[in-house]
Amino acid sequence: MRVRWLAAMPALIAGAGVLLWAQASGSDFPDARATDPVTLGWMTGSPPPAGKIVRFSDGSHYKFPQTRWAFSHMRELVPTAVVPRGAGPVSALPRSERRDLDAVTFMPIGKSTPMTWAAAFDANYTDGIVVLHRGQIVYERYGGALTPERQHIAFSVTKSFVATLASILMAEGRLDERATVASYVPELQRSAFGDATIRQLLDMTTGLDYSEDYADDRSPVWSLGRAVGFLPMPPGYSRPATSYAYLASLAKSGAHGERFVYKTPNTDVLAWVLRRVSGQTLSDLLCERIFSKLGAEQDAYFLVDATGVEFAGGGLHMALRDLARFGEAMRLDGKFNGQQIVPKTFVDDVRRGGDTQKFAGAGYTTLPGGSYHSMWWVLHNPHGAYSARGIHGQAIYVDPAAEMVIARFASHPLGGNVNIDPMSLPAYDAVAKHLMKP
Amino acid sequence: MRVRWLAAMPALIAGAGVLLWAQASGSDFPDARATDPVTLGWMTGSPPPAGKIVRFSDGSHYKFPQTRWAFSHMRELVPTAVVPRGAGPVSALPRSERRDLDAVTFMPIGKSTPMTWAAAFDANYTDGIVVLHRGQIVYERYGGALTPERQHIAFSVTKSFVATLASILMAEGRLDERATVASYVPELQRSAFGDATIRQLLDMTTGLDYSEDYADDRSPVWSLGRAVGFLPMPPGYSRPATSYAYLASLAKSGAHGERFVYKTPNTDVLAWVLRRVSGQTLSDLLCERIFSKLGAEQDAYFLVDATGVEFAGGGLHMALRDLARFGEAMRLDGKFNGQQIVPKTFVDDVRRGGDTQKFAGAGYTTLPGGSYHSMWWVLHNPHGAYSARGIHGQAIYVDPAAEMVIARFASHPLGGNVNIDPMSLPAYDAVAKHLMKP
Repeated sequence: MRVRWLAAMPALIAGAGVLLWAQASGSDFPDARATDPVTLGWMTGSPPPAGKIVRFSDGSHYKFPQTRWAFSHMRELVPTAVVPRGAGPVSALPRSERRDLDAVTFMPIGKSTPMTWAAAFDANYTDGIVVLHRGQIVYERYGGALTPERQHIAFSVTKSFVATLASILMAEGRLDERATVASYVPELQRSAFGDATIRQLLDMTTGLDYSEDYADDRSPVWSLGRAVGFLPMPPGYSRPATSYAYLASLAKSGAHGERFVYKTPNTDVLAWVLRRVSGQTLSDLLCERIFSKLGAEQDAYFLVDATGVEFAGGGLHMALRDLARFGEAMRLDGKFNGQQIVPKTFVDDVRRGGDTQKFAGAGYTTLPGGSYHSMWWVLHNPHGAYSARGIHGQAIYVDPAAEMVIARFASHPLGGNVNIDPMSLPAYDAVAKHLMKP
Repeated sequence: MRVRWLAAMPALIAGAGVLLWAQASGSDFPDARATDPVTLGWMTGSPPPAGKIVRFSDGSHYKFPQTRWAFSHMRELVPTAVVPRGAGPVSALPRSERRDLDAVTFMPIGKSTPMTWAAAFDANYTDGIVVLHRGQIVYERYGGALTPERQHIAFSVTKSFVATLASILMAEGRLDERATVASYVPELQRSAFGDATIRQLLDMTTGLDYSEDYADDRSPVWSLGRAVGFLPMPPGYSRPATSYAYLASLAKSGAHGERFVYKTPNTDVLAWVLRRVSGQTLSDLLCERIFSKLGAEQDAYFLVDATGVEFAGGGLHMALRDLARFGEAMRLDGKFNGQQIVPKTFVDDVRRGGDTQKFAGAGYTTLPGGSYHSMWWVLHNPHGAYSARGIHGQAIYVDPAAEMVIARFASHPLGGNVNIDPMSLPAYDAVAKHLMKP
């Protein structure tokens, strides 16, 4: 289990270090009720008692169960850049609640006892979940420290937004997926990325000397979290202190285009290209091209590094309903709130998915037959589902056949989705089938 | 001039240190056009060139002209707590533009050559100004790095919000202005504030050993900015590292109630009391009691210290139109957006003002005959104007006779409003008289 979990785990989890490494499954952790951040009183009181303070400087923001508070309060701990919702009206998300969903049962992967949709909420340490059916909210529930107004970290769901932005610039002819990274960002010429193409970034097939060796204190995975501003730097820290310095320091290993290996820096390099092409910050680009068009309810925001550069690989935070709105746009061929926000050709391309052979070797046991394409996860299941996924249980799940979109934020104690998929993917499928009943 | 400027300057300015101390007037600084943050390209580029990076860690966020960028981008530099706008609709601010305002002339204090309203915009390093007349936007203009969607630091205008919150809890009988600080916050029993009353905080008549001696590197004024999170702490910093620790460290000097001396820590102590009384964070309290009721366009936010405590003395940031909405509520007897948001008795009390005798000794040469009451500045002028004021030119100006409210954000190179009042207060009065013409 341990090996597969690590294989499935994106780089960022490195930050949790010893704690998460020492645990091979979620069963050793206290459950959602015992770690409820409101009951535990994190950051409650004036001042909060010493033992109830969550900080960035000591890394407690990324220790469980403090994460159950921190994932909904990141801006109180670190500098952030706003992605304004824009000045327009909030787009309608009509509501037609379906209480019957709570009783829907499913069989968790690897188990022989069914579980209800209602029970999965706590089992997955869910901070909030919204189910849209034909554009209507049929289910909405919050837990942990999240409220409808508050933004939660989306972790690698961020990547799907960034790649979707890239698709918009490609459709306009401003970005060529066949061009090399260095043709846009000459500073990366001598790094691993210099001769990689934009398409190789998008599909994470770059050959990158980037390991996830947690026993090595100088491993790149530790350095990434620090450089992008997600983890504190110890005193006297001498590794790259900014996102760009870190990316430029990465060396090549093997050939580009041969294998899919999920490596977060690809997205941060893509974002660097997008900034260079657009002349905008990633925040402004996301606002202008996607976010403001969704009719979002709340501003979103990015975690930024020591020079104000957004963490494109995992630093977007937003309100849950706005995450659902984006999912709905991706269900509706890119069209939402009366506008074609995302090119239909891109949505079609995501649905077709990527190379399942290349994906098969990557060890994602909960996604058999799946693929990764343009920073979206494609299930290649009978419903044609595709998903944006982030560690600790962040997800957009689009089921075209069921006309269903699920948006979920969570604070599962373990990073890798392999730990939360068993009680999530079959649950999504069961609810989809339930909603498809006449 | 130097002495008077210092007398008028709130504590926070200490953070600017040598730069602002060395200058007795704004005339030695490059003008608004020469310091335009967009033209200068602060934080522009991917990455911004080394010389164009504005940071908190090196204090460049509080050096002029970087302040012209930073005052509209603080959340990108430091941790912040959101004050949600709430889920309700945006309240209407009808628009009826009056281009004729630009040609209105006034005589700056101490000058013999008139200036136009239009020229005052740059002369005051204005980042944004809105004039409401009878509830309609008759003038709105942005400069610097501000946009209608972006939040600007309000500095000590924050204090007027905090005192207004206190008035709401007082009207409900939950807070007694005659009670001592220690009766609410026993931790402050042995500090200067222990036997001070809430009223003495509100009117800043506490006897506080709190100097503004810039030559002393251990002066309390430097320590305040660091403790509340507005200024970086040097390596090995040994003074109080949080707002609460700092407030508890302040000793008494003289008797309470005798003199008005503007001292920022009074507001942070008041906020501590409000948190204790309400059981809420200041952000949540402000959202619930005022901000969400205004029908604000954007979220607001607070600068927070190393334990997440909001800087009540000067850390609120908001969009300009939302600042104007609050001013309009204070003009309309506390009623706005269909609700009685602020108790009418409080607005009446603010209008009556405070002790002009106590105020007269404090050296505010641009506010002759004025007073300070409940953290509002009262002009006692023929129009009955009252104002919320923050360093570097932040202001709400309510002119009841003219049915006018002005909200302004600025990034004047000097902190003390004595430097910006000469081209502001007569301008406000001239526009008021212009708008009163039939």
